[in-house]
Amino acid sequence: MSHTAFLAELTSILGERYVLTEAVDTELFLTDHRGRYHGKALAVTRPASTEEVSRVVKACARAGIAVVPQGGNTGLCGGATPLEPRPAIVIRLDRMNAIRAVSPAEETMVVEAGCILADIQAAAAKEGLLFPLSLGAEGSCQIGGNIATNAGGISVLRYGNTRQLVLGLETVLADGTVLDSLRRLRKDNAGYDLKQLFIGAEGTLGIVTGAALKLFPGIRSRSIAMMQLSSVEDALAMFARARKVFGESISSFEIIGSSYMDFVLRYVPGTVMPFGQKAPWYLLLEVGDSQPDTPFTDAMEGLLAEAFEAGLISDAIIASSLAQEEAIWKLRHGVTGEFKLAGKTMSHDTSVPVAEQPAFVTRVENGVLAAFPDANVMMVGHIGDGNIHVVVLFPHERFATSEAFEEASDAIDVIIDNVAMELGGSITAEHGVGTTYRKRLARTKNPAELALMRQIKAVLDPTDMMNPGKLFLPEATT
Amino acid sequence: MSHTAFLAELTSILGERYVLTEAVDTELFLTDHRGRYHGKALAVTRPASTEEVSRVVKACARAGIAVVPQGGNTGLCGGATPLEPRPAIVIRLDRMNAIRAVSPAEETMVVEAGCILADIQAAAAKEGLLFPLSLGAEGSCQIGGNIATNAGGISVLRYGNTRQLVLGLETVLADGTVLDSLRRLRKDNAGYDLKQLFIGAEGTLGIVTGAALKLFPGIRSRSIAMMQLSSVEDALAMFARARKVFGESISSFEIIGSSYMDFVLRYVPGTVMPFGQKAPWYLLLEVGDSQPDTPFTDAMEGLLAEAFEAGLISDAIIASSLAQEEAIWKLRHGVTGEFKLAGKTMSHDTSVPVAEQPAFVTRVENGVLAAFPDANVMMVGHIGDGNIHVVVLFPHERFATSEAFEEASDAIDVIIDNVAMELGGSITAEHGVGTTYRKRLARTKNPAELALMRQIKAVLDPTDMMNPGKLFLPEATT
Repeated sequence: MSHTAFLAELTSILGERYVLTEAVDTELFLTDHRGRYHGKALAVTRPASTEEVSRVVKACARAGIAVVPQGGNTGLCGGATPLEPRPAIVIRLDRMNAIRAVSPAEETMVVEAGCILADIQAAAAKEGLLFPLSLGAEGSCQIGGNIATNAGGISVLRYGNTRQLVLGLETVLADGTVLDSLRRLRKDNAGYDLKQLFIGAEGTLGIVTGAALKLFPGIRSRSIAMMQLSSVEDALAMFARARKVFGESISSFEIIGSSYMDFVLRYVPGTVMPFGQKAPWYLLLEVGDSQPDTPFTDAMEGLLAEAFEAGLISDAIIASSLAQEEAIWKLRHGVTGEFKLAGKTMSHDTSVPVAEQPAFVTRVENGVLAAFPDANVMMVGHIGDGNIHVVVLFPHERFATSEAFEEASDAIDVIIDNVAMELGGSITAEHGVGTTYRKRLARTKNPAELALMRQIKAVLDPTDMMNPGKLFLPEATT
Repeated sequence: MSHTAFLAELTSILGERYVLTEAVDTELFLTDHRGRYHGKALAVTRPASTEEVSRVVKACARAGIAVVPQGGNTGLCGGATPLEPRPAIVIRLDRMNAIRAVSPAEETMVVEAGCILADIQAAAAKEGLLFPLSLGAEGSCQIGGNIATNAGGISVLRYGNTRQLVLGLETVLADGTVLDSLRRLRKDNAGYDLKQLFIGAEGTLGIVTGAALKLFPGIRSRSIAMMQLSSVEDALAMFARARKVFGESISSFEIIGSSYMDFVLRYVPGTVMPFGQKAPWYLLLEVGDSQPDTPFTDAMEGLLAEAFEAGLISDAIIASSLAQEEAIWKLRHGVTGEFKLAGKTMSHDTSVPVAEQPAFVTRVENGVLAAFPDANVMMVGHIGDGNIHVVVLFPHERFATSEAFEEASDAIDVIIDNVAMELGGSITAEHGVGTTYRKRLARTKNPAELALMRQIKAVLDPTDMMNPGKLFLPEATT
């Protein structure tokens, strides 16, 4: 089939308006939001229903055209950009943005894949409930993308990753079959739990078109504190103390390294250092409860006073207003865009078992500095989950060519990945693999797991038409 | 290879002592614990390590012998009994019962598959932590079996099914490959989450040999109440009220129907009716917290007083001692064995969306009674999770032949399954499929899901040697 005939078929399914082929219309969707990947596609399509997605995929299967599903296009690994030489279309889910049902009695919500995360959070809040997934891009990322990448964020410690928040799923397979596993059930052992296959598969096994989500009681009491301390060991000791006082009420437990804090204070507008002096590490602790009058502040004051007495922390503040809460969170959040101002950065998303984080931090810092004494090794992350982001910063002019930058970047990848593997970790805790991490995945994943991944891919997508080139390197190169 | 040569090979791997072939040694493991299924096997094997499991499976693969993994043999669906004509061995995991590591700092535990659930609970409790999986058979079931069946139980509402409690998994595949996904990570998006395939697959895709488990803060304050009320609608209204008062501190929310309560009081030794009069329904509410002095009793009294005022409940008690707590739970627990005394029973394990339970209960009761006016339709279950067990009881002498019983049982299956399907439910919420539910699964599962299940099975177990005959009916009959 000629591409012209194929595009005519797409138009007959979706209407002319929703088959974009002009560069002026498609450009935004062929480049990731950070501008690191630029792809090309025969068309960017915008189906309005699962049925339309299915018909478009069937047309692609017949014509041998690849399919790249795209949510809010906010991913960090180039997972939603068509980058392969094979002709492809992008399927944007943004028109499928209906919240089909919210049930307070069930604490469930049924949504289409294109719903924006913040809209889902708001719809839950309207019923006094909480959809706990929360991350920097929540104002524009879509739930379908969150599910396809098993998104993490700042509430994983308490509520789990996106995987734990999905009760049911609707997916369109490579042959256009609609796999309807969209059940609102909390318990279902009737055969294999097929939805698990698609969560975190980054669109390589099928396209998520709808989901039944799990909600939780809304948070009506809260307390947020920030502490200064001298080591990651002390941070874990602090976590153990906080657990004793607050148990499962801990919503977030985040760490910020000194040089990362310096970077934020310098480059993120409106941030203010809340302490009179610097410290090697900063901890952010948020606790919350569905009861309106839980006396968290007293308990928080007690916890901090005792930790200070014990020499675990050198200083601490408790937010006493919404503005102070936001000011504290601002120190942790939303700096991705500012990295460019500071220099050339290499960002990582490693996880290790929680107790291995002191070793991870020390060994990574020593390893990178041994190889690149001029590197600024910044660290920030979800220490309650074992997920520390290492951001290695160099001056803008450090590398003469992009090849030199890539070479250094690869060398640093190897240093960090080796430490992660030795400690039983993962090279990508929450960002996924996409295009960016393929080589590292191939290098670090154990061969039996990688072989089984390929087998699963082959059975669900025998012609490799679903988001090809993501996760896996071409067979010959691995 | 002759069976004699095959058995000699097993003996060379495991030692004579751990290859059981005499009926006197194997009988206990070829019959399920309720005595409903009787199988046969060339041998019952008892490997001591993952390496030995792998070598035994390789020997089976070479010889064309099927493998039936077996944990505590406490399943309710005949999933661990070798029932196919094809020659098979049983692999018991009971010698692999080491708790390899407990980390309070990480709230993780690494165990071998043969660990008994109660031992895992105790090892967690020793560190002041909780492994929340709890079910009737916990004194003898093994974690490998719990994982293979994605076991549910009484704490799912708060902590999720077994699937939510597994961080990492070690599995032996059909070709003997050891799939080591035994990571203690809370976040890991490095490729497909392969461990999900094996959780709930009932040994049809591989043998679970080890697991990294998620622990939680131990419960140090608790309150347990029992209520009488007149409808399932009122029970859900009560759940909404309890959620407002206790939020995520609700550990269990269970319902017992009147005729089930009568049955328990009559047949379970040591049970006592805690109220002066009967009621159509009884609710059991347990709340808990990791803090030692949470004033739950005051809040519970307030909740019950207001519900009574509002006419939602007709009577209620709050346990004021450990003995009273146990007496209340005894009314809910451990009656499977007693069904035989009462008559011929047909037990179901249905789930529906939480809000659909009033419709489910009414339509099932009406449907069964219309077809079998002499049936005693008993109900009991996890109403917080949408999982109500329907137990239909007939007098011992009701059916002249076992064929007549089977025919009635099939008819009742169809009645209940149809209601469940119309309400978006599942025919097996927590028990799994095994042998018992295969026909019903084939009838009720949507064809696209069933087809994909078969594809997955074919790729992981191309010779159908892993627990054959479970989950799936032979291809021709579906």
